[in-house]
Amino acid sequence: MSLNDNSWFTEAYNDFTAFSVRYSRKLYDETSDFQRIEIFETDAMGRVLILNGCFMVTEKDTFIYHEMLVHPAMALLETPRRVVIIGGGDAGAVTELVKYSELESITLCEIDPRVVSSCREYFPALSSGLDDPRVQVLYEDGAAFISRFQEEFDLVLVDSTDPVGPGVALYEMSFYQNIKKSLKKNGAAVLQTESPLFMADVFENSVKNLRSVFGNAGATPYLAVIPSYPGGMWSFTMCSETVDPTKGAPRNISGNLRGDLRYYNGEVHRAAFALPEFVRRML
Amino acid sequence: MSLNDNSWFTEAYNDFTAFSVRYSRKLYDETSDFQRIEIFETDAMGRVLILNGCFMVTEKDTFIYHEMLVHPAMALLETPRRVVIIGGGDAGAVTELVKYSELESITLCEIDPRVVSSCREYFPALSSGLDDPRVQVLYEDGAAFISRFQEEFDLVLVDSTDPVGPGVALYEMSFYQNIKKSLKKNGAAVLQTESPLFMADVFENSVKNLRSVFGNAGATPYLAVIPSYPGGMWSFTMCSETVDPTKGAPRNISGNLRGDLRYYNGEVHRAAFALPEFVRRML
Repeated sequence: MSLNDNSWFTEAYNDFTAFSVRYSRKLYDETSDFQRIEIFETDAMGRVLILNGCFMVTEKDTFIYHEMLVHPAMALLETPRRVVIIGGGDAGAVTELVKYSELESITLCEIDPRVVSSCREYFPALSSGLDDPRVQVLYEDGAAFISRFQEEFDLVLVDSTDPVGPGVALYEMSFYQNIKKSLKKNGAAVLQTESPLFMADVFENSVKNLRSVFGNAGATPYLAVIPSYPGGMWSFTMCSETVDPTKGAPRNISGNLRGDLRYYNGEVHRAAFALPEFVRRML
Repeated sequence: MSLNDNSWFTEAYNDFTAFSVRYSRKLYDETSDFQRIEIFETDAMGRVLILNGCFMVTEKDTFIYHEMLVHPAMALLETPRRVVIIGGGDAGAVTELVKYSELESITLCEIDPRVVSSCREYFPALSSGLDDPRVQVLYEDGAAFISRFQEEFDLVLVDSTDPVGPGVALYEMSFYQNIKKSLKKNGAAVLQTESPLFMADVFENSVKNLRSVFGNAGATPYLAVIPSYPGGMWSFTMCSETVDPTKGAPRNISGNLRGDLRYYNGEVHRAAFALPEFVRRML
């Protein structure tokens, strides 16, 4: 069949495969200084945020991405206090982080203020963490921001787009080195590192580069399923000089927080680090 | 963007979402007595088998589906000898099974001979297991076939299409009861049970019905990522009165077989049974 009428939004991946969603309404369309921002209302996936033609958020599955970006590291860090998020202007990661009462400071460093303002308007639940008094939002280049700190953060989250447009700087070695410098001794960083199935090169290079900075045992990929991202099988890489995510159990998530989670739990935490054979052989 | 030219094949799921792949050539198109069978050559996913408009096999990701249908149960059964596959005319499951020297008999019961013959021609590696002398192919209705046996099989695999067309009978209670009757005392069955994210109703009903037949502890869902299937997050359900897949370690897979696997390993086995919170709450 073909999707010829104009009520479908389609993301084609490298002109090879495509994922489409039928929408009932286009809510927002703006070309900011950095990228095109589109928001659609859809029956199947709820509201959908598209940046430069790529799915970033769908109300149907974004809980998987944001929970798996935030909670595995938070469950392993002993006394996390200060967190920074690079990118992540939809504020989904912020909203997961404010659930932890022990955090004192959550800094969102997003290059594009229009992503934040449009998500505040059209994704009020997803971005509700921005109202927390511990949250500070900075609109600047994340790579430049992180380069100014030394042993400052317990957790750095890199919630980037693909390595195109404003996302390119977030895949460079100097950025990885500056993240390491910005971390406290017992701190950790988590970066989204693309699909090992569809974007095998980006995944492989990202993990190899992170291992050259944090050491072989210091950069550990883990996986989650995110249907609206190309390949569905998505990777994150946890980096730390002291936290080994494959050893030691995750902390118990407190009852209140646990009730609020839809994907993450202790078993999912451990399972995420079990890599399929073809992924193990890439590394 | 739109995919208006005619070199894209698109599967739309319920007119809500769609997955498309660009093809270089259409290799096969036949309407058999049971369904439309199409085979495409694509750059991104290799050769692709489409039944009634739905992705069944892609050379890119079908190893995940077939390995996860076959190996978790084979790693838990103590002395498997006789296996039957209901559906599965692409023979990918057969090809995984013939890797086990301890199996004496592998019966493929597929309703549509044209699926088998077209896959033999266009997916020679995937269907190569059909040449093994232990394999017998029967062209008949799987539900009728299985109803004739009592304590006959160590393993029954249900490699069905979605619950439409020829697949409907493979989601009925009487079919589940007949599977149970056909199993030896220490036997097991594995059924593909659709996506808990996109086809939540089918998944939930299938598991509930299987639990009413095999008991609550006797039907255990597990997950794998299959990008070309709607929702990407795909479920299988293992059923047995004696084998508890969540307890006890899987057998070590022998060195020869292990080298041949691209997704499955012992860690992936255990990880597959870790269910995300939203799936646990459905059951």
